[in-house]
Amino acid sequence: MNHKHIKQIDITKKSSVDEIMRQMEAGGFGAKKLSEAATILEAAIKDKETKVFLGVAGALVPAGMRKILRDMIADGWVDVVVSTGANITHDIIEAMGHHHTVGSEKADDLELRDKKIDRIYDVFLENKAYEDLETYLHKIYADIPKKKMGVREFLFEIGKRIDDENSILRTAADKNVPIFCPGIADSAMGFHAWSYILDNELSVDVFEDMKEIMAITWNSKNSSVFILGGGVPKDYILQAMQFSPKEHSSAVQITMDRPEHGGLSGAELRESISWGKLGKNATHATVTADITIALPFIVAALKERGL
Amino acid sequence: MNHKHIKQIDITKKSSVDEIMRQMEAGGFGAKKLSEAATILEAAIKDKETKVFLGVAGALVPAGMRKILRDMIADGWVDVVVSTGANITHDIIEAMGHHHTVGSEKADDLELRDKKIDRIYDVFLENKAYEDLETYLHKIYADIPKKKMGVREFLFEIGKRIDDENSILRTAADKNVPIFCPGIADSAMGFHAWSYILDNELSVDVFEDMKEIMAITWNSKNSSVFILGGGVPKDYILQAMQFSPKEHSSAVQITMDRPEHGGLSGAELRESISWGKLGKNATHATVTADITIALPFIVAALKERGL
Amino acid sequence: MNHKHIKQIDITKKSSVDEIMRQMEAGGFGAKKLSEAATILEAAIKDKETKVFLGVAGALVPAGMRKILRDMIADGWVDVVVSTGANITHDIIEAMGHHHTVGSEKADDLELRDKKIDRIYDVFLENKAYEDLETYLHKIYADIPKKKMGVREFLFEIGKRIDDENSILRTAADKNVPIFCPGIADSAMGFHAWSYILDNELSVDVFEDMKEIMAITWNSKNSSVFILGGGVPKDYILQAMQFSPKEHSSAVQITMDRPEHGGLSGAELRESISWGKLGKNATHATVTADITIALPFIVAALKERGL
Amino acid sequence: MNHKHIKQIDITKKSSVDEIMRQMEAGGFGAKKLSEAATILEAAIKDKETKVFLGVAGALVPAGMRKILRDMIADGWVDVVVSTGANITHDIIEAMGHHHTVGSEKADDLELRDKKIDRIYDVFLENKAYEDLETYLHKIYADIPKKKMGVREFLFEIGKRIDDENSILRTAADKNVPIFCPGIADSAMGFHAWSYILDNELSVDVFEDMKEIMAITWNSKNSSVFILGGGVPKDYILQAMQFSPKEHSSAVQITMDRPEHGGLSGAELRESISWGKLGKNATHATVTADITIALPFIVAALKERGL
Repeated sequence: MNHKHIKQIDITKKSSVDEIMRQMEAGGFGAKKLSEAATILEAAIKDKETKVFLGVAGALVPAGMRKILRDMIADGWVDVVVSTGANITHDIIEAMGHHHTVGSEKADDLELRDKKIDRIYDVFLENKAYEDLETYLHKIYADIPKKKMGVREFLFEIGKRIDDENSILRTAADKNVPIFCPGIADSAMGFHAWSYILDNELSVDVFEDMKEIMAITWNSKNSSVFILGGGVPKDYILQAMQFSPKEHSSAVQITMDRPEHGGLSGAELRESISWGKLGKNATHATVTADITIALPFIVAALKERGL
Repeated sequence: MNHKHIKQIDITKKSSVDEIMRQMEAGGFGAKKLSEAATILEAAIKDKETKVFLGVAGALVPAGMRKILRDMIADGWVDVVVSTGANITHDIIEAMGHHHTVGSEKADDLELRDKKIDRIYDVFLENKAYEDLETYLHKIYADIPKKKMGVREFLFEIGKRIDDENSILRTAADKNVPIFCPGIADSAMGFHAWSYILDNELSVDVFEDMKEIMAITWNSKNSSVFILGGGVPKDYILQAMQFSPKEHSSAVQITMDRPEHGGLSGAELRESISWGKLGKNATHATVTADITIALPFIVAALKERGL
Repeated sequence: MNHKHIKQIDITKKSSVDEIMRQMEAGGFGAKKLSEAATILEAAIKDKETKVFLGVAGALVPAGMRKILRDMIADGWVDVVVSTGANITHDIIEAMGHHHTVGSEKADDLELRDKKIDRIYDVFLENKAYEDLETYLHKIYADIPKKKMGVREFLFEIGKRIDDENSILRTAADKNVPIFCPGIADSAMGFHAWSYILDNELSVDVFEDMKEIMAITWNSKNSSVFILGGGVPKDYILQAMQFSPKEHSSAVQITMDRPEHGGLSGAELRESISWGKLGKNATHATVTADITIALPFIVAALKERGL
Repeated sequence: MNHKHIKQIDITKKSSVDEIMRQMEAGGFGAKKLSEAATILEAAIKDKETKVFLGVAGALVPAGMRKILRDMIADGWVDVVVSTGANITHDIIEAMGHHHTVGSEKADDLELRDKKIDRIYDVFLENKAYEDLETYLHKIYADIPKKKMGVREFLFEIGKRIDDENSILRTAADKNVPIFCPGIADSAMGFHAWSYILDNELSVDVFEDMKEIMAITWNSKNSSVFILGGGVPKDYILQAMQFSPKEHSSAVQITMDRPEHGGLSGAELRESISWGKLGKNATHATVTADITIALPFIVAALKERGL
């Protein structure tokens, strides 16, 4: 066996994030996986011929991960984003000046209902944000070109009209990083489009984006997957390769979901090798962790490494 | 406190599923939740003025749940279905005559890749199924009306053209039960639409369904939620009520996801009370279980009860 | 590949527990594992030359599993029991006539404290039970022989003095099934021994049981492991084989714990093959499920099968 | 509501562990819990009148956490340790000069068996270590006083005889920090005691420690609980207060176990308020995380804070 000795991790008052992360490489369990994730991601970002696909699921923006995600785009770490509708919605809500707040997950939901405060575990948002969002979005919808488009272009048009440099959507538009959101209908953006199209025209096609995502996968020399959570973004990023002659060359996933019940979110990354989504020689690591814990330390370590 | 005595569950060789399920009501932990789920669902199905919304996520069709889901529709248990694209895809694949097989989750994915067999935990499918699916779907796509439609109508048109009475999609079309699939682009159906629209016309609008799902929620007297898994189906069913003056009157969820990391899939149902998605007096139960274990026993118990 | 076709599970109003369980064998995910667990356990119980080791962790007695566990011993299904101290304590508490009750896991713990009610998730117990337990145990302790003994013999002496035919401890004493409890000091029995030995003599040796458990493993022709939960009982049952020339010939585990963080409770059973605890050809299955859901259905299926 | 605004976490190349940890306090989900855990632990360690009880479960020493745990004792952070037998065993094995190694959790257990290598997820140990351990322990057992003692004293006697300043057991003996191990019989130490007592005398009493742990709880002005994992150490530390007029004044737990199935390991800390184990006004936080990820960053943050 070509095993490495476990080195007992040694923490001093001067230990930096990356020093700890590198020590974890000679540890076991989650520590080892976290360290491997950083190493794989570092290599993918540094290689100019590798396209990095970022999948974003879970309520990351409400929990304080917005700036980190925005910076990953701004700093050129990622080339393609696939997101749930929720994170985009919450990005816009923050761009409008609304704030998420943090309290206790034990809050009384009946009382919150009376106060019109929406709860996401221990994070809260005034329901008024959704009313304001309707007005805000309708104004933007009225401004964007009246032509049939895909969701990617639709989000690009919205992003250009958001006046907040900390916005994920705006930053992606500025940097020309495509954001795909195959489940956009399942979001407040979708429901507010409903009230809009009652009286106005808006034409966003379900399948239009396929051409673009397929073109990206067919034309990528190498590609790396960085999945936060699972869900539709994970599936979409991986599946794009199933129907392409290429395959992803490395992959990292951070999730709390588990594999035994067969859901894709918790599926082992090696499973996607059987499908031709991930390469047979691909490096990959799954970190079983809360993203809000793992992501900040991974990003800090990579910045220390000069990224 | 108005507590009931725990009664020690007593199993004999004649214990039927429902006898066990009813005993579980006086037990604790998961047993109690399973029993409550059956009771809530029974009441919802029996009440003619309650619309039952079924959410289907996770690879349920591959794992052997297709007939159960199909029967729930055929027997009039559910009024609205919201599904992932994957379950619909696998339903069609079985309708075409392909079979899923079961083996070991320890299978070598590199070997599977060489044999062109796709793995979903311990369930397998020849990749050829996806090639055949393309041909099958293109034929159907060519046959359906050339007009702008929503995903619901698109799936209805496909369902009518599936020649398999055990098909979920076909049964729903026959029974006029709408199937919504907000994330359809993220499925083999979506990717095969891509190859189709390279040369042909197909116009499925992202936001078109909003009118229908909103009309259903606005017009429902009572409504009950039965969520298998989580993901987009859970979000869509609940969110439809956020933007409606109504609210769901009861809810059941079976999931293995957990709440602490803030993802919607594992979120407590009571959280949706704060949002106005679930009523303040709604009965609700979350069963922390593998759906393939919990669902067959719940369905068997309800059938014993005469449903 | 030697794969079996998935058969879509079909439930009718006459489906018995075992009919469903047998159908699950041709399903995937948790359903398949549950079915395999029943099959492995059935074979182990039926083989007269196989010793069945039952590991009991988690608050199973409080949640309503006491009669099931007691019957497994009374019906000769198990030959050796390894338990946490808690299940034994709660068995005695029920034997004394105290009742566990069931309510909501959302109960206010501060209010419960004022009412002197102890909470175990959604199961409750008056704290007075522990006061009565002290009196009850001190009386028994005074009656048992004054000699150095191991925990196994200590529990046997207590069991003989419990006047309740539904008691696990009493039934095991009657059937001469040894109950090991290596962590007994960590239980109310241990803490009440403390108040006893302040004024009285009691001599229970930590290592005395080793001789007995080792003799059992050395002399077993075949042995099968049925682990409910994990913890000390899992470790003890498996480890007894590490230091024996024999090995367990089959194994079933029902647990909600997961393997990635390296704890033994969630460790895959195959891991114990590397240690020489489980045989290289052993059949084994881990069911990822709440024991209170899975166990009653497994037991019902086995009883239908004539056990 | 007295909610704080979520502040989007901002990572630069100069962000130190503690700067990130402090930012997490204004985030949500796991990040917030991690930050709270550090704050609670910091306060407990700094308060000279607070006794800190450390519970250690899970294979932490094999995974690289030995030095961190040892330093917590050496630096005076903890006053009482309750451990599983496994961590103590692996501490001794490292003291003997054996090394754990790290590889892949996908390793073939049958092959490992042939090579006599034991697997703990992705960590490995030559089985020879256990043979050497027997010789090593028997020598120590022969040297320690021949009198009836509790496990705490037994471990103290062993610790004094270990020649390794990085040993947890030795450091605890040097610093006079008691190590309790109520489940010691369930460990290689226990099984090697068996082979010893076949020919020699050794008398370790199960209940003897009760006097000491109860004396500590009765005499503590304040006490704080720091639970790594769960299992017997968690139960023992909390239960010691159930039978004492005092109660723990703060508590932190890091675990991946979940509460719904009623096991103590995953139980919410607030549950122990109902039992009188934790004070009604106690601060407490549960971090749902792999200990090998969370612990190094917590320790690093506290060292930055001057501890």
